[in-house]
Amino acid sequence: MDVPAVALHETSASAAALPPSPAAVAAVTQALAASFGNRLITSLAVRQQHGHTLTWIPNQPPDAVVYPHSTQEVSEIVTLCARHGVPVIAFGTGTSLEGHVNAPYGGVCVDLSQMKRIVAVNAEDLDCVVEAGVTRKELNEHLRDMGLMFPIDPGADASLGGMAATRASGTNAVRYGTMKDNVLALTAVMADGSVVKTSTRARKTSAGYDLTRLLVGSEGTLGIITEVTLKLHGIPEAIAAGVCPFPSIKAACDTAIMTIQTGIPVARIELLDEVMIKGFNLHSKLGLPETPMLFVEFHGTEAWVKEQSERFGEIAAEFGGGPFDWATKAEDRTRLWEARHNGYWAGRALRPGADTLATDVCVPISQLADCVEETKRDIEATGLIAPIAGHVGDGNFHTQPLLDLADPDEVARVQGFLDRLVKRALAMGGTCTGEHGVGQKKIKYLEAEHGAPALAVMRTLKRALDPQNILNPGKIVVL
Amino acid sequence: MDVPAVALHETSASAAALPPSPAAVAAVTQALAASFGNRLITSLAVRQQHGHTLTWIPNQPPDAVVYPHSTQEVSEIVTLCARHGVPVIAFGTGTSLEGHVNAPYGGVCVDLSQMKRIVAVNAEDLDCVVEAGVTRKELNEHLRDMGLMFPIDPGADASLGGMAATRASGTNAVRYGTMKDNVLALTAVMADGSVVKTSTRARKTSAGYDLTRLLVGSEGTLGIITEVTLKLHGIPEAIAAGVCPFPSIKAACDTAIMTIQTGIPVARIELLDEVMIKGFNLHSKLGLPETPMLFVEFHGTEAWVKEQSERFGEIAAEFGGGPFDWATKAEDRTRLWEARHNGYWAGRALRPGADTLATDVCVPISQLADCVEETKRDIEATGLIAPIAGHVGDGNFHTQPLLDLADPDEVARVQGFLDRLVKRALAMGGTCTGEHGVGQKKIKYLEAEHGAPALAVMRTLKRALDPQNILNPGKIVVL
Repeated sequence: MDVPAVALHETSASAAALPPSPAAVAAVTQALAASFGNRLITSLAVRQQHGHTLTWIPNQPPDAVVYPHSTQEVSEIVTLCARHGVPVIAFGTGTSLEGHVNAPYGGVCVDLSQMKRIVAVNAEDLDCVVEAGVTRKELNEHLRDMGLMFPIDPGADASLGGMAATRASGTNAVRYGTMKDNVLALTAVMADGSVVKTSTRARKTSAGYDLTRLLVGSEGTLGIITEVTLKLHGIPEAIAAGVCPFPSIKAACDTAIMTIQTGIPVARIELLDEVMIKGFNLHSKLGLPETPMLFVEFHGTEAWVKEQSERFGEIAAEFGGGPFDWATKAEDRTRLWEARHNGYWAGRALRPGADTLATDVCVPISQLADCVEETKRDIEATGLIAPIAGHVGDGNFHTQPLLDLADPDEVARVQGFLDRLVKRALAMGGTCTGEHGVGQKKIKYLEAEHGAPALAVMRTLKRALDPQNILNPGKIVVL
Repeated sequence: MDVPAVALHETSASAAALPPSPAAVAAVTQALAASFGNRLITSLAVRQQHGHTLTWIPNQPPDAVVYPHSTQEVSEIVTLCARHGVPVIAFGTGTSLEGHVNAPYGGVCVDLSQMKRIVAVNAEDLDCVVEAGVTRKELNEHLRDMGLMFPIDPGADASLGGMAATRASGTNAVRYGTMKDNVLALTAVMADGSVVKTSTRARKTSAGYDLTRLLVGSEGTLGIITEVTLKLHGIPEAIAAGVCPFPSIKAACDTAIMTIQTGIPVARIELLDEVMIKGFNLHSKLGLPETPMLFVEFHGTEAWVKEQSERFGEIAAEFGGGPFDWATKAEDRTRLWEARHNGYWAGRALRPGADTLATDVCVPISQLADCVEETKRDIEATGLIAPIAGHVGDGNFHTQPLLDLADPDEVARVQGFLDRLVKRALAMGGTCTGEHGVGQKKIKYLEAEHGAPALAVMRTLKRALDPQNILNPGKIVVL
């Protein structure tokens, strides 16, 4: 570890005391009720829906939920909360997995789901401007007739603001990149209520600090994203998808590695272990052989897709994979990817009635087979049922242990497994999360991953941009 | 303009008084001489070489130049300078164009050109780790036998640290992205001497704030980049390049737009106006027709390159372009791109003995034809010779007015032209610089481009990470 930063990180203002006083919360809630009427809700049911609802993290509801209709309204909310030192938690669709939207100090949840304007689609420039609450499926529905698409696909029908805030990616990232690569610019409300537009619609720029990328992935802790300018892509002329069985996880991983290394621009390449396939068969009746598989998809012209598919088939055969089963019809492809996207439910089918959680890590692709195999041995040794699915073109994979939250011993064993998974990924030069984000549950791994000096810089940024610590406090960095 | 930020941006430490006292400079220089021996140089000639040497910006030499051999040595230099409040200016190859390496307040120039270790090439992972002083050509020379390449190509044989610091791009960016997209992680020395490693070799991550992208393009004002982890690509199986003449700038631009819109993954698509082509003919004896042209290149398999080229040819023909002239042999391709890279010298051939400067803007591609045509009319109306060349797949173009710096009237006319060029690009939704960066000369345009609140955030970041304002002061943001 290098010399820790000292002088640099001692000059910032100290964070306000959290949680805020009941009087401060009451003042904010009353003022919001006056401005927003029935768009300000304080019922416990709605507040709990806006705390963390997915997986195993306890629910910590905010004090109130407000539904703004414009960036200006978000600015008014944040300005008010800043005046009273009350936390503000941005909320999209609530599909994050690591406790991102919990409110450990209470405060106001800003639910952006009513900000649904598609402000502009610039077909010639292959870009669009949308408000934060538009979901990826809504956008793609709107774009389809123009022959355009927004490819980033984390599975859930998440809001585009939320996807930007969490640096989401998913199955198509291997070809089209993550949100980091597909957000050209964004509008955000900062901790003092000021409204920042980070960039223009130009495809590239060298005009100053990259505020876009600073806010993408900041999980609402540095600013609240209210509008995003996104890159679009033409819907490919031809799409081919299919499934390919392998004799082992290693053979499937090696095929993925070779596919990437030979420069085949595969659009999707998903690894499913035999446990996950069993879940698919139970949940989606796919009738697949219960062995490790790759689900792949190619985009391009007819001829180019054919060439890519053939080359992939040759690589798979080299590693003992195959036969490759094509889903040539659109409805077969849809069925395949729906099954993949329903992985969460398929996993649950493996142990009916059990609780579950989803987690992810990402390693350099050369380490992928080892990391997945070690993880599978660990799952077995720990006595868990935990299917594995991965966006393996990027070295990113997920696992989803099934457990009984009422059994403290099982909970402890799962926690031990998750710790070892992260440490294994870090030891292999990887990251504690490829796409799910930090939220509450992965804060403890950031120092091991980044080192103390980098973490000190992150804290400095947080203190500088949110000196009162009111923006989604208790996430990413703890002040 | 939105409400300007107030509370947020008034809490930071104030910047140290610049320039530093002669005693502070003497103390630093003596201490460095003791540690670095003949790697610390104070001769005027060397200092002037490290001030700004390209184009028309006056030279402002540093007080001393030091040549570190490791990140640790850079950390020692910065720690020393921080103690005495002396500026530190990072220097790569000095090929930046907007005054990035000038030393308006004196200080110590940290010349990273002796940090030349290629630390690791991970062929399986398609990445490498190099010290900041390795140039892009040196890296590609090293990679060639492995069948790998680093495609980002700004023309000059710039250092990879410098390219990261300025968010460089160039001819291949339309296919492979800019430095923003190709730096996986970096090591940087911060203003207090602490050493930060921003990320891992994982292809993607959601583990905290994107310090990599914060430092890429920060031009040495937030930290000194000493090591970069870069994405690599396989050398394409087949490459086809060629030139295609057009009856007008508009026809060439429209062809570029349609090429991008139809999803042809062109690797390079360069616009040259008839003035630039004349310069090429004078300088490189290319014998081309003096009309607007596109230079294009396609990468892929044999069959796929053939298909791309044919499709491009069809689009060009639709807009009255052609005939398309192929450079099938590698040496013909090399000659073509050497001519393109020598554009600076080709431009100078148009007015022998004249001074020159190079500048760039970038607009949404739908605005490109209009922006280039208006700019050409402006060049004519202003009575200038100024060739135009553009990375038009990204909407980015350059112009290079020839002028006599001894003629104040001509200098004033050129300055007026440059102002109008930037304002034109901004009015069309573009940026004041697509790839050259801000340096000293484009600071004045940042508020018009980003708005006061975003600029306030940039200042806050600078103050938080460099409270003494010692890292390349007077660039990007002025405190």
